[in-house]
Amino acid sequence: MSEHKLPSRAEDFAEWYNQLVLRAELADYAPVRGCMIVRPYGWALWENIQQALDKRFKATGHVNAAFPLLIPRSFLEREKSHVEGFSPELAVVTVGGGKELEEPLVVRPTSETIIGHAYAKWIKSYRDLPVLINQWNSVVRWELRTKLFLRTLEFFWQEGHTAHATYTEAAAETRQMLDIYTDFAVNEAAIPVIPGRKSDSERFAGADETYSIEAMMGDGKALQAGTSHNLGQNFSKAFDIRYLDRHGELQYCWTTSWGLSTRFIGAIIMVHGDDKGLALPPRLAPIQAVIVPIYKTDEERASVFETAQRIREELVANDIRAKLDERDGLTPGFKFNDWEMRGVPLRVEVGPRDVANGTVALARRDKPGKEGKSFVKQEGLVALVRETLAQVQQSLHQRALAFREANTQEPQGYDEFKSAVERGFARARWCGSRECEAKIKEETKATTRCIPFDQTGDEGACIYCDKAARERVIFARAY
Amino acid sequence: MSEHKLPSRAEDFAEWYNQLVLRAELADYAPVRGCMIVRPYGWALWENIQQALDKRFKATGHVNAAFPLLIPRSFLEREKSHVEGFSPELAVVTVGGGKELEEPLVVRPTSETIIGHAYAKWIKSYRDLPVLINQWNSVVRWELRTKLFLRTLEFFWQEGHTAHATYTEAAAETRQMLDIYTDFAVNEAAIPVIPGRKSDSERFAGADETYSIEAMMGDGKALQAGTSHNLGQNFSKAFDIRYLDRHGELQYCWTTSWGLSTRFIGAIIMVHGDDKGLALPPRLAPIQAVIVPIYKTDEERASVFETAQRIREELVANDIRAKLDERDGLTPGFKFNDWEMRGVPLRVEVGPRDVANGTVALARRDKPGKEGKSFVKQEGLVALVRETLAQVQQSLHQRALAFREANTQEPQGYDEFKSAVERGFARARWCGSRECEAKIKEETKATTRCIPFDQTGDEGACIYCDKAARERVIFARAY
Repeated sequence: MSEHKLPSRAEDFAEWYNQLVLRAELADYAPVRGCMIVRPYGWALWENIQQALDKRFKATGHVNAAFPLLIPRSFLEREKSHVEGFSPELAVVTVGGGKELEEPLVVRPTSETIIGHAYAKWIKSYRDLPVLINQWNSVVRWELRTKLFLRTLEFFWQEGHTAHATYTEAAAETRQMLDIYTDFAVNEAAIPVIPGRKSDSERFAGADETYSIEAMMGDGKALQAGTSHNLGQNFSKAFDIRYLDRHGELQYCWTTSWGLSTRFIGAIIMVHGDDKGLALPPRLAPIQAVIVPIYKTDEERASVFETAQRIREELVANDIRAKLDERDGLTPGFKFNDWEMRGVPLRVEVGPRDVANGTVALARRDKPGKEGKSFVKQEGLVALVRETLAQVQQSLHQRALAFREANTQEPQGYDEFKSAVERGFARARWCGSRECEAKIKEETKATTRCIPFDQTGDEGACIYCDKAARERVIFARAY
Repeated sequence: MSEHKLPSRAEDFAEWYNQLVLRAELADYAPVRGCMIVRPYGWALWENIQQALDKRFKATGHVNAAFPLLIPRSFLEREKSHVEGFSPELAVVTVGGGKELEEPLVVRPTSETIIGHAYAKWIKSYRDLPVLINQWNSVVRWELRTKLFLRTLEFFWQEGHTAHATYTEAAAETRQMLDIYTDFAVNEAAIPVIPGRKSDSERFAGADETYSIEAMMGDGKALQAGTSHNLGQNFSKAFDIRYLDRHGELQYCWTTSWGLSTRFIGAIIMVHGDDKGLALPPRLAPIQAVIVPIYKTDEERASVFETAQRIREELVANDIRAKLDERDGLTPGFKFNDWEMRGVPLRVEVGPRDVANGTVALARRDKPGKEGKSFVKQEGLVALVRETLAQVQQSLHQRALAFREANTQEPQGYDEFKSAVERGFARARWCGSRECEAKIKEETKATTRCIPFDQTGDEGACIYCDKAARERVIFARAY
């Protein structure tokens, strides 16, 4: 219920976000610090995300499986950078069935190690390759500062893990999966993203190369929305994942991993949301169209409900996720606000006059007031709703893209750079040294988000040290 | 690959089961004792089970959500029988982020407590009821004797948790969910089941009443394939789940929970499998029809593959889960055995003569040799395959039902009872006393599986103590 107004985004973006997540009933705090409950409305959104991704994974030959939650602690220690990256964040099971365990078990923070162990057992020959497995699960990382969806002790995600015969194949897989995330973000979530590779310091613990998609949130900050890692032979050497090649020689596999998590829900909220609340992209919205009946008398109620129910059935029969708001005792105005806050892309209003005239009013979530409202015939409504949802989808994407472009600068000097990252993204040259990266972070709080694949190739000077720098990098403050 | 023969079921049922699970690549042992990896073929089966159930849950108004994996230990202690039932089986996290935790956290063995805590927060008035939430996840119970799918430290399941305003509604929900499990078992998995209520000693820890569906495995033993619990007000009192009724008075809610797990995959294996391997019910089988090309020369291979690919595409386009076995270097005979072992319901053989004559050979998994084989035209194949799959589905169910009937007895005396439970189910009167139940278990290893809803109502004598007993109970040795 939205009895109180949300704080405006300009006033307090962080507070707007927190209140909105709770009020829209997407998620709630759990009794354990830093954990979250994903409530039915939030989970329905995640289920739509899962379906959109899973379809793409399966179309590219991947299959799902399930690996255990508990991993022997010693497994993590086999890959040097991996254990350094993850050991401060582990949840450790030391007691099982009332007894102290001989070897502590960690609740998986990610599954490269336990999957590596399984692949070493399963893979014998080049005929067994590639292995293309994904799993949908949750992982636990002991984070100190948490925020619903964005950073929680337990979060939900998918993690793909593949093994290949050659470096070339593994490199192609890593890029393919980032392309899938990009396609998903743009075409399902209406979120424009910048695909690129991570700097050395931002790489996944144990990867040779990490790619990511980066999105701009409504406050100009960046959010890493999906990652794909080329693990080289690091895990295959640590776990002895080898295969007999066509010449009968033992070779180490090349492996990859890639993941997208419930963080992405945070991105959807912060990219599309406005001061009225959520604005969900129609392709992922749990409810695409809400029908609000308007009536005063019991007689009006009966006839309005009859029409409203028929409309709902027609929409549902045509695979449109439609809901009829049947709650009594609430005003239409309250319901309008409530569904706007929950981000439903399209509202269908049905009143007594509409029943008489065979009309309805349509109101688009993306366009406030009169601009987004139209009065249309009930005849042909299904096609019109479908078309309008496609328009909302497109308009959300265009709006987000325009916002990102308006808040991305190519600063000429460090002063311009500093003001650019106050507001949004800076696309600036960087020499590649860890020192410049660290200094910039220290002085501006901006980090290298990614080195976009899309480069001009000409040479110039590093924004910080003026040394030669071929590549332009996206710098931003980040979630 | 099935290079070696499986042990026969008559010879060693347990070993037949273990080897089959591994060889069919349904699951594998994990490095942590008692945990399992569900491999892609097993997980695809589970995904089909999930879809069939999820559709039924949603059609009855349930929604999905996700509650945390980690539960404060103190939560379990709030419900007396619950903590007694579960505390010996807990996995306990005592260290997080490198530090000893102030309060240990348990990895959920089931979620009544943490969900109870959330419901207490969310439910305020009768308008908020009923709450009908399900979640798909995994839970951990520190079992000592484990077996893939049947009893593992971590297992996958769904757990539904509902809250209602009245006892009547909660009772109806408990029965409704058991009916859904029954419908699913019979119509999707082709497994005949006996629905009924559990005896006091077999009840869920914290329930007023537990219902279950019980199935007979291929060795005559029983397997509890799904349970539904009426929790009364036990958890609502322990967690203070209250609502304001229409008269403005605070009332405790009535809650239920119900679950079906990856155990069910064990039931599918043991009910339908035979000495050749798995026999999967077509409605749940990851691959419904496998196309095996038969050729000798490269020329034959080209024309056979062209036809086989066309057939595969036609089947897939018509929503039949078809696969073409493209492996070179393996004989057709090897492939036939391999797919039989993996339980694919229908095999389509395509050879050079079939290409010339526009025919194929169809072989049913449920009928060995010539009996299950037919030679048919390629024209009209889609409809024929669909029809044949429906026949296989029906025949598996009939075979399982006939087997159960042949191995279920209504013993007249305790001697007959003892021999009945050696072979299968005994349907016998029981006075309801814990003593008789315990004695029978001690002397015969048979336990009360359920008290079927279907009763004649007449009175007779307890099979053990001869005292008056109105109800007939299913007794069996159980998994």
